[in-house]
Amino acid sequence: MCINLIKMFVYQHPLRVRYSDTDRMGYVYYGNYGNYYEQARAEAIRSLGITYKEIEESGTIMPITRMNIKYVHPAYYDELLLIRTIVPHLPKRIIVFNYEVFNERKVLINEGETHLIFVDAATGKVKTAPLSLLDKMKPYF
Amino acid sequence: MCINLIKMFVYQHPLRVRYSDTDRMGYVYYGNYGNYYEQARAEAIRSLGITYKEIEESGTIMPITRMNIKYVHPAYYDELLLIRTIVPHLPKRIIVFNYEVFNERKVLINEGETHLIFVDAATGKVKTAPLSLLDKMKPYF
Amino acid sequence: MCINLIKMFVYQHPLRVRYSDTDRMGYVYYGNYGNYYEQARAEAIRSLGITYKEIEESGTIMPITRMNIKYVHPAYYDELLLIRTIVPHLPKRIIVFNYEVFNERKVLINEGETHLIFVDAATGKVKTAPLSLLDKMKPYF
Amino acid sequence: MCINLIKMFVYQHPLRVRYSDTDRMGYVYYGNYGNYYEQARAEAIRSLGITYKEIEESGTIMPITRMNIKYVHPAYYDELLLIRTIVPHLPKRIIVFNYEVFNERKVLINEGETHLIFVDAATGKVKTAPLSLLDKMKPYF
Repeated sequence: MCINLIKMFVYQHPLRVRYSDTDRMGYVYYGNYGNYYEQARAEAIRSLGITYKEIEESGTIMPITRMNIKYVHPAYYDELLLIRTIVPHLPKRIIVFNYEVFNERKVLINEGETHLIFVDAATGKVKTAPLSLLDKMKPYF
Repeated sequence: MCINLIKMFVYQHPLRVRYSDTDRMGYVYYGNYGNYYEQARAEAIRSLGITYKEIEESGTIMPITRMNIKYVHPAYYDELLLIRTIVPHLPKRIIVFNYEVFNERKVLINEGETHLIFVDAATGKVKTAPLSLLDKMKPYF
Repeated sequence: MCINLIKMFVYQHPLRVRYSDTDRMGYVYYGNYGNYYEQARAEAIRSLGITYKEIEESGTIMPITRMNIKYVHPAYYDELLLIRTIVPHLPKRIIVFNYEVFNERKVLINEGETHLIFVDAATGKVKTAPLSLLDKMKPYF
Repeated sequence: MCINLIKMFVYQHPLRVRYSDTDRMGYVYYGNYGNYYEQARAEAIRSLGITYKEIEESGTIMPITRMNIKYVHPAYYDELLLIRTIVPHLPKRIIVFNYEVFNERKVLINEGETHLIFVDAATGKVKTAPLSLLDKMKPYF
């Protein structure tokens, strides 16, 4: 008997490398992965039935407190990357996102992590994750 | 006898090409010149003794309505460009900026123009240039 | 009897506004439209059955010589824009692209134009459009 | 008697926040710090009497393998930041850069680290730091 005890939320987002993303080495410039991660997590949240924008407009902003990136292989112009976004546990005051970026040959080229805190836009104080988001995430955990 | 009848405001700003500005052709990506122009005109205004930020914070925002760019030669990584910003006439409801970008060999590599309108941040209505800016500019015209 | 004599190539590309595209006014930063146009024309060419990358790798690079943008209304975070890319005539030494950007309410918010020249990557000399591209475009003109 | 046993290379670079760097929260977009670090380390190397570009053009490219960022406070439009770049030890196959970003009130707002590996541009193989760079750095260690 086998029971999968690991519960998490996973979403996969395809992303085409733009010319503007490349640098003179011919690689995706290393500083662009933060933008890639942002796109990936915005689409991950949208897939839950709520948007990053709606969360902000209901009074919760989500500044980043940490980002760690491990660059394994470069990405190149016009590649159709696949970004796997993982939320490893239900958020409290911080939401952790892990990212795995794969190229068209399914090679893992990049891994990253971001931490976002929930902040009340009116008071500037740290708060817990809004219920509107938690309710959508709970079924995955 | 020679009388210079042309009055205008001119400011020169040096700007170093960053790695992130380049693309896989090895050139400064064409889409980055709008950012270069922004830096150049912000410094041009600062040289007058007022800042773009102060103008915004006193209630006037300045959205762009037009940008035209003519690309003559590419710019390359680590070049120290010189951007000449010209305000050809005293602004009314629109402020026109012209830009000439030179490389280290003093070759003109790029020319551009932007139009910015003055908008009241509270009402969203077009207005005339704020006096705080006009007073600084008048001596040049 | 009505005969449409105007022949052109038109392609429509949806594009989601990213957080990184916005500025402190809450608008898409004016300098980002060059990137948006690049994405739109790359997808327009891909729809023909050839890619920008293949053209480059077969020895023809395509630097931009002009870009003109008219900003009508701002775009906002998370909007799903539609970019209509138009090639108004069969290219010779220059390929012209026109762009019309619409927001979700189908309002035209931005219009632009870019000119790209065909350059032999080996010699650096201007050349005519490669046959591989012309053959794909001819049926539209 | 006091002997300072800690030897390292430190360089401080001022950097003005551009409008394009901000996002709709009014902060410097979190993804831009990689670009800021690049500027800071390029100037740090230049201060040694050699440039990043010269290293690349003599056959050694330096891809990034890791970047870690800790965001403490936001940065705002038009602030003149100070970026302190530290090379904590003489590089072998990897060069480590630490960064500390301060705002105008001398508050530490951001800390980061990048690892770059030395790669032979011709063979694609990892190599040791070029002597041209090591010779300039040795006096600091």
